[in-house]
Amino acid sequence: MDEGADALLVVSNRGPVGFEWDAATGGLQAKRAAGGLVNTLGPGAHRYGARWLAASTSAADMRPEAAQLLANERIGFWPVSVEPEMYRSYYDIVSNQTLWFCLHGLWDSPRRPRFDRHWWRAWESYKRVNELFAGEVDRAAPLGATVLVQDYQLALTPAMVAKQRPDLRLCSFVHTPWCSPDELSALPDEVAATVLEGLAGGGPVGFHSERWAGAFRACVEAALARPADTFVATAAVDTEDLATVAASDACESELRKLRSAVGDRQLIVRVDRLELSKNVLRGFWAYEELLEVRPDLRGRVVFAALVYPSRVGLAEYQAYGQEVLSLASRINARWGTSDWTPILVQPEDNYPRSVAALRSYDVLLVNPLRDGLNLVAKEGPSVNERDGVLVLSTQAGASVELGDAAISVNPFDVSATANALAEALNLPSYQRRLTAGRLRAAAAKRTPYDWFDDLVAAARRDRRPSSP
Amino acid sequence: MDEGADALLVVSNRGPVGFEWDAATGGLQAKRAAGGLVNTLGPGAHRYGARWLAASTSAADMRPEAAQLLANERIGFWPVSVEPEMYRSYYDIVSNQTLWFCLHGLWDSPRRPRFDRHWWRAWESYKRVNELFAGEVDRAAPLGATVLVQDYQLALTPAMVAKQRPDLRLCSFVHTPWCSPDELSALPDEVAATVLEGLAGGGPVGFHSERWAGAFRACVEAALARPADTFVATAAVDTEDLATVAASDACESELRKLRSAVGDRQLIVRVDRLELSKNVLRGFWAYEELLEVRPDLRGRVVFAALVYPSRVGLAEYQAYGQEVLSLASRINARWGTSDWTPILVQPEDNYPRSVAALRSYDVLLVNPLRDGLNLVAKEGPSVNERDGVLVLSTQAGASVELGDAAISVNPFDVSATANALAEALNLPSYQRRLTAGRLRAAAAKRTPYDWFDDLVAAARRDRRPSSP
Repeated sequence: MDEGADALLVVSNRGPVGFEWDAATGGLQAKRAAGGLVNTLGPGAHRYGARWLAASTSAADMRPEAAQLLANERIGFWPVSVEPEMYRSYYDIVSNQTLWFCLHGLWDSPRRPRFDRHWWRAWESYKRVNELFAGEVDRAAPLGATVLVQDYQLALTPAMVAKQRPDLRLCSFVHTPWCSPDELSALPDEVAATVLEGLAGGGPVGFHSERWAGAFRACVEAALARPADTFVATAAVDTEDLATVAASDACESELRKLRSAVGDRQLIVRVDRLELSKNVLRGFWAYEELLEVRPDLRGRVVFAALVYPSRVGLAEYQAYGQEVLSLASRINARWGTSDWTPILVQPEDNYPRSVAALRSYDVLLVNPLRDGLNLVAKEGPSVNERDGVLVLSTQAGASVELGDAAISVNPFDVSATANALAEALNLPSYQRRLTAGRLRAAAAKRTPYDWFDDLVAAARRDRRPSSP
Repeated sequence: MDEGADALLVVSNRGPVGFEWDAATGGLQAKRAAGGLVNTLGPGAHRYGARWLAASTSAADMRPEAAQLLANERIGFWPVSVEPEMYRSYYDIVSNQTLWFCLHGLWDSPRRPRFDRHWWRAWESYKRVNELFAGEVDRAAPLGATVLVQDYQLALTPAMVAKQRPDLRLCSFVHTPWCSPDELSALPDEVAATVLEGLAGGGPVGFHSERWAGAFRACVEAALARPADTFVATAAVDTEDLATVAASDACESELRKLRSAVGDRQLIVRVDRLELSKNVLRGFWAYEELLEVRPDLRGRVVFAALVYPSRVGLAEYQAYGQEVLSLASRINARWGTSDWTPILVQPEDNYPRSVAALRSYDVLLVNPLRDGLNLVAKEGPSVNERDGVLVLSTQAGASVELGDAAISVNPFDVSATANALAEALNLPSYQRRLTAGRLRAAAAKRTPYDWFDDLVAAARRDRRPSSP
């Protein structure tokens, strides 16, 4: 790790590595943290030898063994200790049930959000946890260091850091979409203003797409009546890491299992967190409409849905997961035969299996309602071995780079999605080869290091008057 | 009715009067149609001796007796005959489940809307019914007549009429809010463009508030890349009619019943269609929070919710109605005592009772998530006899005229709504008198005739190049 003005700090809710007690040995077991954000940050943090501040609610994270386990990654883990009850309020209630839903346009507005007195107590926790992070940045950052604050959980931290430490070179990055001023106005004025000021008041604010950056500027303009300094840095696939997993025995073994289940049928794949914004239900409805209107495809195609659980502590996710599973069951019961299961749902987190499915698809369906980027849309073309076709939502940030070589769909339009699947399944092989090549090239244009460098450059061009 | 260039046609989905077969006499029974739109149009249509085109799905509407019954109102009813099945698709599926939800921001986006092949068939019906209306306008309108097309059910009719009959003086009026371009983009492009073109291509488009007019222009600009001609005309209370009802025996009798149930407690009232946009649940949650944080108010206040059924054929409304009733039951079971029922829910359509409640409130709660205008917010102050206070959503069109004299709330903010109720209940009587006077004056500024005249003026200044 560098010290002084060359030092680099990454600040995020979740850390690069999780720890579990190994019951057998009684020792700590390092575990790679799941999730796009950590994958996106990892390579750059490693190269820069970053110090990584992240929340810790478990005793394991706080032990010296934890830091030791990370030393060979050249990453210094700096845990920010948060009481479990406070963490739950900050993370589940404000970050995920409120800000995530608002930014992705997910609210069932007659019922949610509900800013009642329980919520306002959670808001106090959110502010407090952001203060804890800002305080730890103050302790951890040498004079003139570069600080990269990550995502909507820490929306208040950037301005707090800027105020406490005008010497730091600071930026923040929001991995989600940003919503319109109208949508943001569902938040109480005080909350919206605090979130916007928290981000806009702490150096440049980055997004995966100009679309979200523009929405953020419009919100700051509407609520705070001033411009905001934003930048766009599109995240990229860690192709080396992906190739390593793809070449692994575990992946090969999953690939054989998948191919034996699919046989010589065509294969549609989706790989997603089981998340309301991912639009899994409409993907299944579209597939069913395809089977209804195209009898020739019955028995000739399989839809493998690799949907790994997420935020299972929230009732909304439990309910959605149940709906996804029962819709798949109903479709299988209606259309399936003794030797054909139309939908294979795999609701477990199994990364080698996900990569096997990406190697093997004829059609990759990525149809989120709204998505900051969607890394799967880039990972698929990077490892796919069958000149597979991408059906991509116009509402994913990735559609800016990939839209020209993908079949674009309005994610709400089930019939259009069914038509897109039909078109993708029928595409002549020379066209498949052509578009797969273009998708691969588009996905390979940038690396995770490019993205990380963009953040560092944004932090170091910080135009705050008080910066050095 | 005037003929020739002085003739005036009102075109709306629902007509001014409904008809039922009277089982006892075997004859037709005229029945005043319910709903704000008909009340808003009625006085002006009567004064101008308008010819009124509206959908008819019942044999009763088509009989000569029907026209006869309206003759003494100086309104000529011109039924537009629609097959019941086609009407259901046009009205329930496209108008109410799709356009209404989109314009009010009501979708539970992980699940609805769902533009599948069933929906696309309904869309054909919507287009067809709009064509039927345009065809009847063509038959019914003398050369140079003035035509006022009403609301989102007939969004395609204005442009169709303009194309068929460039001689007519034409405008349309949208009684709902209008949504942002982002929200409208949930509709398939073809649908959004057809709706926008259907309105913008048929003379000036009116709204109750500049906010909705601006949103409409932004949508037209974004989707069609051209400006739209809009105007603002705010609807007003028919105070004569309201005073007649208020003075009726039926209303007096309801008032006595209500006062005997309430006693000397303070009275909070809401009067709404049982409609997802009206935000009934959060009103009850706010009231419960008030009882939680203000023990002194327990037993000292009653909340009368007059919520009359609406669109009971739609599953979303059935479910919402059940939630409203069971939430009220739970709150009553938790807080009620042998001599105090905290919430009186009256889920029947009883206009004299609604007016009795408006005469009698201490606090009127009008907290819609989004509302084109909300006429109740004006009706209340017009007939209230207790210097009652208005708690009003910032998202109701009426907040432009009344916001200064009301206590404004973000409708999503349950705690803010509870605080607003507390503030309203505690307001000193001199302040109540002052604000009630200002509300009354603001509500009385315009009449339904003013509104109607604005539409006529907009139609007659029509700037389409081909108009006479």
